Order: sequence, then structure tokens, then C-alpha cells
Amino acid sequence: MPNSAPTIAGLHSAYAAGAKPAEVVAAAYARIRAVGDPGIFLHLAPEADVQAAAAHLPAFDPVRYPLWGVPCAVKDNIDVAGMPTTAACPAFAYAPERSAFAVEKLAAAGALVIGKTNLDQFATGLVGVRTPHPVPRNAFDPARVPGGSSSGSAVAVAQGIVAFALGTDTAGSGRVPAGLNDLVGLKPSVGAISARGMVPACRTLDCVSVFARTVDDAFAAYAVMRGFDAGDDYSRPVATDMPSEAALPRRLGVPDAASLMFFGDHAGEAAWQASLAHLKPLVDEIVEIDLTPFLAVARLLYDGPWVAERHAAIRAFLATNAGNVHPVTRAIVGNAGRFSATDAFEGLYRLAELRRATEPTWARIDTLAVPTAPIFPTLAELEADPIGPNSRLGTYTNFVNLLDLAALAVPGPFRSDGLPAGLTLVGPRGSDAALARLGAAFEMPAAERRGATRPAAA
Amino acid sequence: MPNSAPTIAGLHSAYAAGAKPAEVVAAAYARIRAVGDPGIFLHLAPEADVQAAAAHLPAFDPVRYPLWGVPCAVKDNIDVAGMPTTAACPAFAYAPERSAFAVEKLAAAGALVIGKTNLDQFATGLVGVRTPHPVPRNAFDPARVPGGSSSGSAVAVAQGIVAFALGTDTAGSGRVPAGLNDLVGLKPSVGAISARGMVPACRTLDCVSVFARTVDDAFAAYAVMRGFDAGDDYSRPVATDMPSEAALPRRLGVPDAASLMFFGDHAGEAAWQASLAHLKPLVDEIVEIDLTPFLAVARLLYDGPWVAERHAAIRAFLATNAGNVHPVTRAIVGNAGRFSATDAFEGLYRLAELRRATEPTWARIDTLAVPTAPIFPTLAELEADPIGPNSRLGTYTNFVNLLDLAALAVPGPFRSDGLPAGLTLVGPRGSDAALARLGAAFEMPAAERRGATRPAAA
Repeated sequence: MPNSAPTIAGLHSAYAAGAKPAEVVAAAYARIRAVGDPGIFLHLAPEADVQAAAAHLPAFDPVRYPLWGVPCAVKDNIDVAGMPTTAACPAFAYAPERSAFAVEKLAAAGALVIGKTNLDQFATGLVGVRTPHPVPRNAFDPARVPGGSSSGSAVAVAQGIVAFALGTDTAGSGRVPAGLNDLVGLKPSVGAISARGMVPACRTLDCVSVFARTVDDAFAAYAVMRGFDAGDDYSRPVATDMPSEAALPRRLGVPDAASLMFFGDHAGEAAWQASLAHLKPLVDEIVEIDLTPFLAVARLLYDGPWVAERHAAIRAFLATNAGNVHPVTRAIVGNAGRFSATDAFEGLYRLAELRRATEPTWARIDTLAVPTAPIFPTLAELEADPIGPNSRLGTYTNFVNLLDLAALAVPGPFRSDGLPAGLTLVGPRGSDAALARLGAAFEMPAAERRGATRPAAA
Repeated sequence: MPNSAPTIAGLHSAYAAGAKPAEVVAAAYARIRAVGDPGIFLHLAPEADVQAAAAHLPAFDPVRYPLWGVPCAVKDNIDVAGMPTTAACPAFAYAPERSAFAVEKLAAAGALVIGKTNLDQFATGLVGVRTPHPVPRNAFDPARVPGGSSSGSAVAVAQGIVAFALGTDTAGSGRVPAGLNDLVGLKPSVGAISARGMVPACRTLDCVSVFARTVDDAFAAYAVMRGFDAGDDYSRPVATDMPSEAALPRRLGVPDAASLMFFGDHAGEAAWQASLAHLKPLVDEIVEIDLTPFLAVARLLYDGPWVAERHAAIRAFLATNAGNVHPVTRAIVGNAGRFSATDAFEGLYRLAELRRATEPTWARIDTLAVPTAPIFPTLAELEADPIGPNSRLGTYTNFVNLLDLAALAVPGPFRSDGLPAGLTLVGPRGSDAALARLGAAFEMPAAERRGATRPAAA
């Protein structure tokens, strides 16, 4: 279980008090060795290289450089110049000449990228086990899945190696691993951070996301990265910085009883209720929402033609390298062949219909709270059924990008079995900062969260 | 050639002076008989029925009922309760229980629908000849195509039968027939008028459009019909009514020499130059624009996967009725089979890329003027080649809906061969009213337009 975990705020306090980046970098590498998980990093920069970069930082100025001297990790489907990009498919590897837009912004803000992290190959999965490399170990129970697809980035933060890490989020890859590793997972409005330099999963939906230990840290990294980029055809910047007081979330939607599914995971359900009890006093109004159209959108993502976007992303590679692709990934992407262009447009029509069906909900509420992950599968369960638990994990995440929404996963009270749990706040496009405000208000000290759902008789 | 053509303004003046709707309705039917074109209407209401409707109009109040007592026609891919909808495919016929959203708005404003008009079957075409019925005759030269797909609606207005008529516009069906029949063709921002009750062509692009003799008339009908409709998943109302003085078009883009194509039609080219000479003094600045990315978007519409939208629209019908579909239409829609879902998404990516490439243009100009139709084909040319002239007709129309733009075709100086010509103003989404302002300023009396491009030596 993680300890001595760095935060941006904590590091900047230490730097202000005289600490040196060299010590912080050394601590990160020491922590890597102490954790001893060979599944986290697919490429780790030599410590000397990062020390050299740290030595070349300008003078400490946390206003001008909001991420000054902060070690971070980057999911290996996002380009970092000087490190290979593989998307967890060794045969796909290439050496990017330029860092992704998001990574360039991090570097300009003073962050130090120490390595590239493991993922469900081509970001296809929510489990974190669909990789030809060792699976990153869940930071709380190595018998459980780490969550994916941004498994390595989540575990790197959860294990206290880095203060924050970049993930990507198409179906929920920036939220599920946060939920399963006791982290904040910030999934921005679609297009708010340029995807230039990211290996596409579904280009119309892909988001760069942030894992961090606190909402403030996640938002600080997000704020550095967002902005318009003419180099990404899907860049659509979010206009507002922080919401006015009046725009803060006041009317909270929660799933009604029929929309709540935990697939028999009673510990998960109890933890959700504990989270909700802590959240409710923070808003003015609670509205029970029938999630039927949202859940129907969620099912479209893998059952509908969007799987063809995953095919489009690796079409040329797949044509000559099918044998080098993870068998589960290959099977999923292979489903694209079932869909014609007519099916694709009919899928878009169905999405438009369901989006319209969700609109009255947003007239009633400004934020929706859902469980981040309704189950917490074991590695053995995934071995027995590589698809089913993965699908169930996306119950409350898959609809978000298809509906052009923003989301923030925040840790909540632990489960009675000692595993982490949490909830995800979902809001309309552009609500990123409003969600962060509410999420920060919801945050509880870890000690408090760990006792909260212990059964009284335990 | 048309004469005694009614306008909304003219009819309302007459009503204010004591004229009766019964006389106006009778005149419309008399005009139908006088014109004697069996290709215009696919269904004509019995005159007695329209007279009965006219007799039941409330008291004359042109403010409350802006279309009071105004006969109009509706393209036969838009539902009118009590009349069959066929989309020019008799086997496809159905009896709608309810009128389309747009038609309900017209009726509520006092308009009198006299019939349903001919079209390129399933609105697939820009020529107006792809119909199993007699082809509507071009109002100026029966040897020329009427333009399509809204052929019957355009000819009904051009022949002075009705003051305005509804068309639809996906590729240019609301603009090309306007250009070839000396009419205003108003193609609203996509979604500004609900498409509920319209037989889809490409659901993501379809617009209800208006043909009229003046910009004011077209705008009056448009203003009545627009607005949000929860019953159309693609309804996206336009916010502003009329632009402030500051928002009026000031910077006009015109195609640069390399972007101008008339395919050898010198009379068309000369008429375009005459139109432009009349337009230029109305704006502050003229900017020559390289239309390359716009023209590349135009080509996507039929060469790319959007043809699958046309397939989606009639998929179930086609499966059992292929023999009942016009052979040219069947061949075009049959191309959908060439495209996979992966191709469809790759088409969307290409569109996003090209849209991005057009954005700098909109930073330089607020309105773009293009020829409405670069050629004026004869029926014989279409007989010899049913596809080529149709494609060329869409050169300056096909890109507009894919790029989410608004457009207004306005008649200009006639060609030296006595045929009508004109230009189309194109603006960003929501510019509908601004285009109408500029278009109204551009309008010239017919007598003036007819002399304008006669060669000096003729």
C-alpha cells in the first residue's frame, strides 16, 4: 500500500523551504525500486537523464512554472520526445520526434517526465490486463485488476512514485483505474486538451486525462495542458476558467434505484452509499435520475459501430501485424468488420436520439454522481472471462464522451473489504472547473475514508 | 416565362385593399392550367378543398399570421397531412397522419398548401430529371434542366403559381433550382428548421429550404418555420433574429481565379462577373479566397461515405423494392456498399481536417459569394450522361452543409443567352439573417437584370 506520496502542493512547499529537485527525483527512483512492480513502466528514463533535466530547470517560480520540479509519468500511447511510443504493442513502436501537445505544455510548466507507462494495448480495455507485459499490480490488492486502460499511470501515482500522471480516456480509461487505486481521475471536456501526439483509440472521443492524489493537483496539471491546438482537428477548448459562484453545482443527480447496478458486489454498493451520504450535504438539491438513456449510450460504445474507430486507428498496422496484437484486442477490433458505413451513420442517429433523451435530465440537474466502478474484479475473474467484467466496469463511464460530458473521479469512503472506492462527478461540456470545485469539497482525509464503511460489527 | 407572379408582400397589400383569398386561390389554379406543366405537382389538392381552408382562415391579421392567405407548395419529401408522401417513388408512398413540423408552422401562420411537388427521387440529384414522372419544365427554357432535387417547388414559384414553396437541401437542392429558375433559395443553418416529417436524404445534413421571388418573402417563411423541435434529434435552433449593424456582412470573400470553374460555360462566367460587380459596392472589403479545402469537402459528399446516409434513409424499402427505384438513384445509393464503418469514421476525420483548413478563411471574411450553379445543362446532356453534369452542378453547393454553413441563393444579372443566373451568399452557422440583409441589398429589378449582360454587339 502506498505511503509518503508526493503531491504538487507538497513538493512546492518543500522546494520553497529549500529542498532540491535532485532529492525529489532520487526519491522517485528509490520509490520505483521499493515498489518493485515491473508492470508499471514500459520505458523508464535513466535517472541521470532526469537529474540532468532537473538541473537545467529555471529558478523556482511556482506561479510561472506551476509544475516546477514535479516528476510525472505519461501513458505510453502519448508521445514523449526521446522515448519510444508503443501503446503496449512492441511491434507498433516508433520514436516520436516531438512530444504530444499535452507533454510539451507539462514540460514548459516545469514538470519532469520520468517514463512511459503500461496500458491495455491500444487503450482498448478498462481492466489493465490486456498487455503483453507484466500487468501493473493494483496498489491495494495484487490479486485485483489495476483498472485500465491507463493502468501503469494510475499505479505509478497510487504507489507514490509520481505526483501525477497522464492517462487517456475514451471509454473510462482515466476514471476506472482512478477508482480502483484510490485516486482522483480528471477526464476533461472532449477536446479541451489537444490529442495531438496521442495514438488514437476513437478519434472523435479521445481525451487526455490526469491521475493525481488530490483534485487540486489534477486540476493544476489540466489547467496547464488545456487550450486550442490547430494541430488537432478535434481540439475544442473550454471557454471558462473557474465558474462564478452562481454556476457552482447545486442540483445533484443520483441514479435511481433501477439505474444502480453493482452486479452482486455488496461491498461496492455500501461504499457508494457512504460516498453519497458524504456528498449530499454539499449541494442544495438531490434529484433521482432514471439513467436508462445514459446506459443505452454506454452500450453503444462497444456494441455499436464505434469499434470501427479503433479499427481506423490501427488499420494499416493491423493489416500486416495481426499476429503481434493482443488476442483480446484483436478480437474486439476485429468486430469492426461487422459494421458497414450505413451502420455507422445509423449508430450516429441512435446516439443523437439518445442524447436528446438525456437533455431533460440536464435541465433538472447540473451535476450527476455515479459510481466510478460498480465492481472490483480479480485477475482470476478476468482470466476466466476477458470480456464480461471489462464491460461491466464501463457501466458508468462509457456514456460520458459519447455525450460530450466532463467527468471527475474522486476517492470516497473505502469498502468494508479494505479496498478503495469512490464516485465520479459528471457534468455538461465546459463544467470541468465546476466539477473540480465540488470534487475538492467532497475530498476526505484518507484516514477518515478508511474507517467510514467498516461494518459496525467488524 | 413567368408573369403576374404573386409575392407575400403583394398578396398582403391586396388583402389589405379588400381582395379575398378565394380570388387568390382561384388565380393559383388558373395559373396551373395556363402553365400546363404536368411535371410540377405529384399531388394537387382539389381547388374546393383549398377554397374551404381559405374560407376558414381567421380575420386578416398579417402580424399575427405572417403568411395569411398565401398559397404555397411543398416538396413531396415533406409530409402534409391529407396528402400522400412519395419522394417521387410511387412504391414508397405513405399517408402521413401529421404534417411536418415546418408545414404545421406554415399552416399556423395562415399559409394554404395547394400541393406536393416533384423532385429527384429521394432528393438524390441536382438536376431535377431523376423522376419517374414527367420532368418539371425549366421556367425559362424547356430544353434545359429545371435543377433539383427540388425541381417542382422551384418551377411552381418561378411560374407564378405560388408565392413560395418548400424545398429541401442536402447537397444544394434548395439552391441549384433557384439559380436555374431566377429565384431566391434560402438554405438555413443546419437544424434551424426541424426536419421532423421530412423523408431523410442525409440525416446529419438535411435542411428544409424556401424558394421565393424575393429575399423578404423567403425570410418571412423561414422565420415562421424555424425554432427548436424536440421531435427532431438534429434540431439546433439559430439563436439570433436579426444581426446588429456591426454584425452585418462587411468582408466579402470571392473565389480566386484558380477556384473559379465554369466548365466552359462562358455565358455563366460572364453572368457571375456581372453579379459580382453589382455585389462588390455593397461591402467594405473584397478578399480573394482559395477554395481548395471547400471544394475538397464538396467532393466528399458523393465520393465519400455520406452516400451511406442515403442508403440508411431507404435501407428497408430498398431491400424489397429495388426494382421500383429510379435506376440512377439506385446506382448512387448502391455505392454505399463500398464503404465500411471504418471508412465512415475516416470520412468524418477527413471532414474534420478539411473543416479546420477552412477556419482561417472565416477569420478573414464574414460572407463568401460563389456562383449558384456553374453550368446550365440541357436535358439532352443529362440523357447522354446522367452523372457528370449533376456532379458539376454541385461544385459550389455540396460543401455548405458538411461545413455547417448557411446559404442564400439570389438572382443576379441574366446570362447573355437570356437564361437566369445568380450567386449564392454563404456564411457561418447562424448567419441566416445577415445573409438575408446582404441578399436583399443585392436584389435588382428583373428588367434591370435582364439587360445587364447582353453583349454590346447583340
